[in-house]
Amino acid sequence: MPDYIEPIEKLIRQFTKLPGVGSKTAQRYALTVLAMSDGEAQAFADAVTHAKRSVKVCSVCGNYTDCDPCHICATRDNSVICVVQEAKDVLAVERLGEYKGVYHVLGGVLNPLKGVGRDDIRLAQLFKRLAGDVKEVILATDTSAEGEATATYIARYVKQCGIKATRLAQGISVGSELQYADEVTLSRAFSNRKEM
Amino acid sequence: MPDYIEPIEKLIRQFTKLPGVGSKTAQRYALTVLAMSDGEAQAFADAVTHAKRSVKVCSVCGNYTDCDPCHICATRDNSVICVVQEAKDVLAVERLGEYKGVYHVLGGVLNPLKGVGRDDIRLAQLFKRLAGDVKEVILATDTSAEGEATATYIARYVKQCGIKATRLAQGISVGSELQYADEVTLSRAFSNRKEM
Repeated sequence: MPDYIEPIEKLIRQFTKLPGVGSKTAQRYALTVLAMSDGEAQAFADAVTHAKRSVKVCSVCGNYTDCDPCHICATRDNSVICVVQEAKDVLAVERLGEYKGVYHVLGGVLNPLKGVGRDDIRLAQLFKRLAGDVKEVILATDTSAEGEATATYIARYVKQCGIKATRLAQGISVGSELQYADEVTLSRAFSNRKEM
Repeated sequence: MPDYIEPIEKLIRQFTKLPGVGSKTAQRYALTVLAMSDGEAQAFADAVTHAKRSVKVCSVCGNYTDCDPCHICATRDNSVICVVQEAKDVLAVERLGEYKGVYHVLGGVLNPLKGVGRDDIRLAQLFKRLAGDVKEVILATDTSAEGEATATYIARYVKQCGIKATRLAQGISVGSELQYADEVTLSRAFSNRKEM
């Protein structure tokens, strides 16, 4: 089967490494890059190397940063730690502009089926932080089965240390209609109902 | 609104230049690149610059190539030209392994609403090629309204030069069910029906 010439095939293969990108999409991306001006393509390549070179992982919280510890760890209330799965979750919470504490990025969740165990995510680093002056650990992992299990696992340890462990509230999305809520969400909304 | 640190934002902006990539997807791509090893990220960046530097456009047919004229123009039957919109269409025809002629990549189709006129696609270069020993021009532009209009426009010129102009057959896809064919396709399949 004939293919593109080698440099194009190589570029297509690189693009298929991105999440959710198959060979057809990678082909579209590669042809788009080829249609760019020399300067644009160079800027694209430079952005990759520059980001990879200058972005570090904060040794305290595991978030992406350009200084260590990151500016959140360095300037905010260290007594409240919000535990999230990925760096992008930090941004989601930061956008609220309400949270004043610090974060801990796990870099994944426990997933025995996929072979992700306790040593594969940043659990030890989190437990080490609890030795400091921590008053509350907010568990903000995803609400997937694995996210829940990881939150439960961490909460047990946190409570053993005599520290408060909380989980983000689960229920019906604000602005959504009751009829469209899935059964698990609706059931949880019932059991978590609040007195008005 | 808080954002990622500058090198990450820059990388996200670069990814949004790819077709169909919004800020959320670009963010996923950027974080994937950051999670790569140094070597992998470097290979990614190198593939972009290498492809951009080594891939040329064939001065005859407009297809991507690493030599000029491309190996198709240099080695194949120059009396039949298959006119396609984009370089990726060449690959689609090449995969058949049946076509022995050469190609002409237009790099788009006439689209007055989007301001794409005769000088914006490789029409003049095609017409210049007709002065050679050309016996047939196969019009294989897309079956969109613009693709059809462009094919009609080219066909008129080709016939004026006393050269045969043909269009790829249109009808029901092989293996598909009649009930799912859209009206325009079905109507065209009727009017193009063949005696058995």
